[in-house]
Amino acid sequence: MNIKFIQSCLSLAFLSLAMTTTALADEGMWLLNRPPRDLLKKQYNFEPTPTWLEHMQKSTARFGGGSSSSIVSADGLVMTNHHVGSGQLKKLSTPKRDLLLDGFYAPTLAEELKCEDLEVRILMSIEDMTDRVNAAAPQGASAEQAATAKRVEISTIEKAAEALTGLDCQIVTLYQGAMYHLYSYKRFTDIRLVWAPEQQAAFFGGDNDNFEYPRFNLDTTFFRLYENNKPYQTDHYLRWSSTGATEGDLIFVVGHPYSTNRLYTVDHLKFLRDTSYPTILQKLWRREIHLLTFSARSYDQQRMAIDALHGTQNSRKAFVGSLAGLLDPDVFAKKVDSENKLRSAVKNNLKYFADWGDAWDQIAQAQRTHKEIYVRYTALKTRRSVIRSELFDIANHLVQLADELPKADDKRLDHYHDAQLDSLYLSLFSPAPIHEALEIANIESGLSYLAETFGADDPLVRKLLDGKSPRARAELAVKKTRLGDIDIRKRYAAAGKTAIDASTDPMIALAVAIDPEARALHKQYETQVEAVEAQAYAKIAAAQFAVMGENIAPDATSSLRLSFGTIKGYTESGEKIPAFTNMGGIYNRSASRNNKPPFDLPQSWIDHKDQLDLSTPFNFVSTPDIIGGNSGSPMVNRNGQVIGLIFDGNIHSLAWGTVFSGKNARAVGVDARAIIEALRKIYGAIALADEMMQGHRK
Amino acid sequence: MNIKFIQSCLSLAFLSLAMTTTALADEGMWLLNRPPRDLLKKQYNFEPTPTWLEHMQKSTARFGGGSSSSIVSADGLVMTNHHVGSGQLKKLSTPKRDLLLDGFYAPTLAEELKCEDLEVRILMSIEDMTDRVNAAAPQGASAEQAATAKRVEISTIEKAAEALTGLDCQIVTLYQGAMYHLYSYKRFTDIRLVWAPEQQAAFFGGDNDNFEYPRFNLDTTFFRLYENNKPYQTDHYLRWSSTGATEGDLIFVVGHPYSTNRLYTVDHLKFLRDTSYPTILQKLWRREIHLLTFSARSYDQQRMAIDALHGTQNSRKAFVGSLAGLLDPDVFAKKVDSENKLRSAVKNNLKYFADWGDAWDQIAQAQRTHKEIYVRYTALKTRRSVIRSELFDIANHLVQLADELPKADDKRLDHYHDAQLDSLYLSLFSPAPIHEALEIANIESGLSYLAETFGADDPLVRKLLDGKSPRARAELAVKKTRLGDIDIRKRYAAAGKTAIDASTDPMIALAVAIDPEARALHKQYETQVEAVEAQAYAKIAAAQFAVMGENIAPDATSSLRLSFGTIKGYTESGEKIPAFTNMGGIYNRSASRNNKPPFDLPQSWIDHKDQLDLSTPFNFVSTPDIIGGNSGSPMVNRNGQVIGLIFDGNIHSLAWGTVFSGKNARAVGVDARAIIEALRKIYGAIALADEMMQGHRK
Repeated sequence: MNIKFIQSCLSLAFLSLAMTTTALADEGMWLLNRPPRDLLKKQYNFEPTPTWLEHMQKSTARFGGGSSSSIVSADGLVMTNHHVGSGQLKKLSTPKRDLLLDGFYAPTLAEELKCEDLEVRILMSIEDMTDRVNAAAPQGASAEQAATAKRVEISTIEKAAEALTGLDCQIVTLYQGAMYHLYSYKRFTDIRLVWAPEQQAAFFGGDNDNFEYPRFNLDTTFFRLYENNKPYQTDHYLRWSSTGATEGDLIFVVGHPYSTNRLYTVDHLKFLRDTSYPTILQKLWRREIHLLTFSARSYDQQRMAIDALHGTQNSRKAFVGSLAGLLDPDVFAKKVDSENKLRSAVKNNLKYFADWGDAWDQIAQAQRTHKEIYVRYTALKTRRSVIRSELFDIANHLVQLADELPKADDKRLDHYHDAQLDSLYLSLFSPAPIHEALEIANIESGLSYLAETFGADDPLVRKLLDGKSPRARAELAVKKTRLGDIDIRKRYAAAGKTAIDASTDPMIALAVAIDPEARALHKQYETQVEAVEAQAYAKIAAAQFAVMGENIAPDATSSLRLSFGTIKGYTESGEKIPAFTNMGGIYNRSASRNNKPPFDLPQSWIDHKDQLDLSTPFNFVSTPDIIGGNSGSPMVNRNGQVIGLIFDGNIHSLAWGTVFSGKNARAVGVDARAIIEALRKIYGAIALADEMMQGHRK
Repeated sequence: MNIKFIQSCLSLAFLSLAMTTTALADEGMWLLNRPPRDLLKKQYNFEPTPTWLEHMQKSTARFGGGSSSSIVSADGLVMTNHHVGSGQLKKLSTPKRDLLLDGFYAPTLAEELKCEDLEVRILMSIEDMTDRVNAAAPQGASAEQAATAKRVEISTIEKAAEALTGLDCQIVTLYQGAMYHLYSYKRFTDIRLVWAPEQQAAFFGGDNDNFEYPRFNLDTTFFRLYENNKPYQTDHYLRWSSTGATEGDLIFVVGHPYSTNRLYTVDHLKFLRDTSYPTILQKLWRREIHLLTFSARSYDQQRMAIDALHGTQNSRKAFVGSLAGLLDPDVFAKKVDSENKLRSAVKNNLKYFADWGDAWDQIAQAQRTHKEIYVRYTALKTRRSVIRSELFDIANHLVQLADELPKADDKRLDHYHDAQLDSLYLSLFSPAPIHEALEIANIESGLSYLAETFGADDPLVRKLLDGKSPRARAELAVKKTRLGDIDIRKRYAAAGKTAIDASTDPMIALAVAIDPEARALHKQYETQVEAVEAQAYAKIAAAQFAVMGENIAPDATSSLRLSFGTIKGYTESGEKIPAFTNMGGIYNRSASRNNKPPFDLPQSWIDHKDQLDLSTPFNFVSTPDIIGGNSGSPMVNRNGQVIGLIFDGNIHSLAWGTVFSGKNARAVGVDARAIIEALRKIYGAIALADEMMQGHRK
């Protein structure tokens, strides 16, 4: 669950403010079926062919809940970031085999470790369904009616497509509802771990260096897709570049940027700046300290919490940066200015004004409502409540399932539609270990947050605590629940409402107690905020199209996108930062920090230093437009060959949420040459390096 | 400033909830002039003589703003905790001489390092002024009028006493105003550092082990008092016990517990539980992450922030624990019950009810007002605002001074009375280094907090930011202010209001901008909360006296107190925790955590392990009633000889704020024998060890 958490936070963080009147040089997360042909031709004299585009599409994959990855051999080898795979590494660890600490390598297929609850999806086709979805909303419908009608139609289309193709089919909403595309994915659930470095090598410099540059991180992990218990065989895989790239080269990033919101109005941004981000940060600061103190008690606890801790630190840093962006008066003034221009253009055209003129006030009203319910809604929200516990999530799902499954598909809450059930069950019935100590601490912390925020005499808080202290209530719920047993979960899922109503399980009781208010707040959010925003932003998007033309990429929506740019250093406080670091640099940086954590080197790197070519390029910065969710995206050259792997953006790229700029904001990648050098000389993973260089296993 | 911060937070944290109807075994922080003679006689067959009490009083000292210490040689040697002295150690450090990292020892007087802005005070006399102060409040005066009249009288008494004795004289309010005692202190400002261990030894286990037990901390530092450039000569010093203490021994703690509030009503506690503590914790969590990330950037920054970080972690842990206590329904039920009993007794007596019956409702009303202003007031409060910067504090003092000094003494804000000016100037004109990077980061963080909490469009926030981002405003204020120059500060202090009004200094501008609202809120707090509480609690204290007798110690008020108890282990989750650890234990604990920070040993401890008697008692637990501010208190036996040094309470002692219990809550001390063993065998500080054993320098 942690990966998802990182992404959703990051994506929010990377929110974009300014609406530029013309797209800047390398701006845009483009659709694979609507690439920026003119721009690429004009600027880089590059024309992507349909074959090139299809190959990129089918050689990349959505990893887990929403990260990115690529297929890098004909035998289904998958490359992603270590920080994307670390949730799985944790689950595959045991007290005796700490994969995060020690890394892992399976020289043979037989030694690969099967992940228990991971899914990877390859996008097989894209179809435009805009007309069908729009036609579903009756003329003159209210925001809520229109949204419902469209949801029904979307669900119908998805189901029909699944029945026809056997693929995993989802409608992606683009340009705030100006376009609806049907994405059909081939879904893999048998995925096995092939190789991972020590976390020290992947996350060298820790939270300290996160979002910084220069960097020295081998943030890379390999998995393998299986079909029918055999490695997935495909011609669509990315070839490894034998030469790598150099400064100034045109490169592409293909991945799943999670979400941007470049249309957001000034009022909406003020809501984020003054309400949403501060509330989120309060929770992140609190949670980070909670996880730090929990981790400090013992190595065992450290191992349990490390993934959640990194996710929290990552999000915290992203939100601090994003808030700093919103508190920059220059950025805000620019946004106000561009909004004023667009609104003037709309005001000066009678038809425009009649169609879209009220959109901004509607957004403002939605923000007022959202502000009223925000703290309480986000604290209680099902699946994202402040009670961060696997067992509580399971209980919550079971309670929701019992309510939702009997309903018609289109009436259900999100996450409980038929098309989503396979994924839901995979996570619900996962045999991944659940750590009792962390569960207790997390539930205690969540219950205490509710008491701190709403007061211990709040009726819901009293109901949840049930006459106990947060600690005692958490201990009871975790120690007495039977939801650790997968068969029990299955029985609840099968029996539905009757079983929930009859349950005396204390974890189920917690979920049942929180459900009514969470549900009511969600309804209010859905109808008075989300639906209003959806309609109003569709108007603003339409106005933007009308005034500025369509040559703008749609906001990121976690669907597959193509970004482009060049490898390029930058200047920081007058100092020139070169584009590339090299492998020798990690030894220097470690020495300069007395080899102390988080700058300590794994033993393997110390032992094999002499064998390494220290001048091998290690990390590099480049200009493509990326955002959270792009973690694990391959970086390829004109020939579609792998030259690197996205793993981060520098601190200035946090402002890409606000205005895209190639001045000193950069995407940060691992160089493909460093991956091969490390595999061969540090990790002795010769077969793996050969597989990538040759494109298939021996 | 950090030490003060630790204390004020801790003291709040150690707040006490339950009003027990009879004092429990070892409960009570007793007045030196009203010791619990009967209790000591009955329970321990011990009768403190006036000589014994006077010797204890004059052999202990208030250290800095409010910690504890003792005189341990005829040549003015002072013992306190390393964590109490660490602020001074930081100030005495330079880039080349890191006293926190390396420790310090001056074998000769000439090598001792003079502290720039430290004061130590020895209590020379106590006089009862209750009748005089009470007589000052006219019959039928309002709460505010009475408080003002008493303040005037207190100031008059203090001034007259100072003029007469040349001592530093302060009225201490006891039993919520039922008693007023005049405390006269001999004040020292020439204090020199004699010895400190490495922080690794003093704070072994770091935040991780703070408030935990078993422990292995040499949390000890020695200073020396000087008078006329020579070591202070005195007969009032504590002799060192040659044998130490053993489990079951009666021991005493003499020190300055900062504050307890055992009279607080249920409504008041709900305010703390639901409003005050959660707000404080939000700031502490935020500040801790801020300091952690600042420290992680470089060793230099780490050194700048380490003291503030430890203070913040200490407070955070204390508040988390205290809040957990308030969220324990058993504790709350006990409090409700004892309050109901007292209120019943008052209700059942016509005279009592007429005199005191309205007190509880008055407290409730004060809490409602306090709640309304709390977040804003505590964010802006002069001297304790969220802008944690030395330079901003200086600017603030100068702005306040300009307003306050022209007023009659009794009309001034607290901290600006004549009796307080010497201390104020000492800190205001301190040449202690100010760290630009930390100043900028702290001001940025404070300004950002205000924007997060009140919104960036809040008029005060806009005024403070002055059209800039928090970072830019902070950089401007720190880089362009001239307040780094002590002469400039002196000029402002001398010139008063005219200079402030004419100033273009950007730090002064920040202080001037925040002043009007901070002042208005303070006025509201003073009149509608503080004064109301003072009157109402005086009534409740009087009612308690009437109903339950006077045999109860007054709440702690940072004045000198005597606690007693025994050395005693306890049981934790069924496991027996022995009272003593020994010096060998630190090596085992370090090894069990792979010798990694915060469990790494200083090189000196590794090098001298073989010379040590590893069975030497190191830390121990005991039952005396202590609280924040007791840090640095000597622990003595019946003969008044030093057997240890208080440095912490275990996690359960955080609940001593709520109910005193000797079950498993314990005060934690350094054993006197470990101090000598370490001085002789690890640090080669033979002369220092000899001085204590012999009672004077050679």
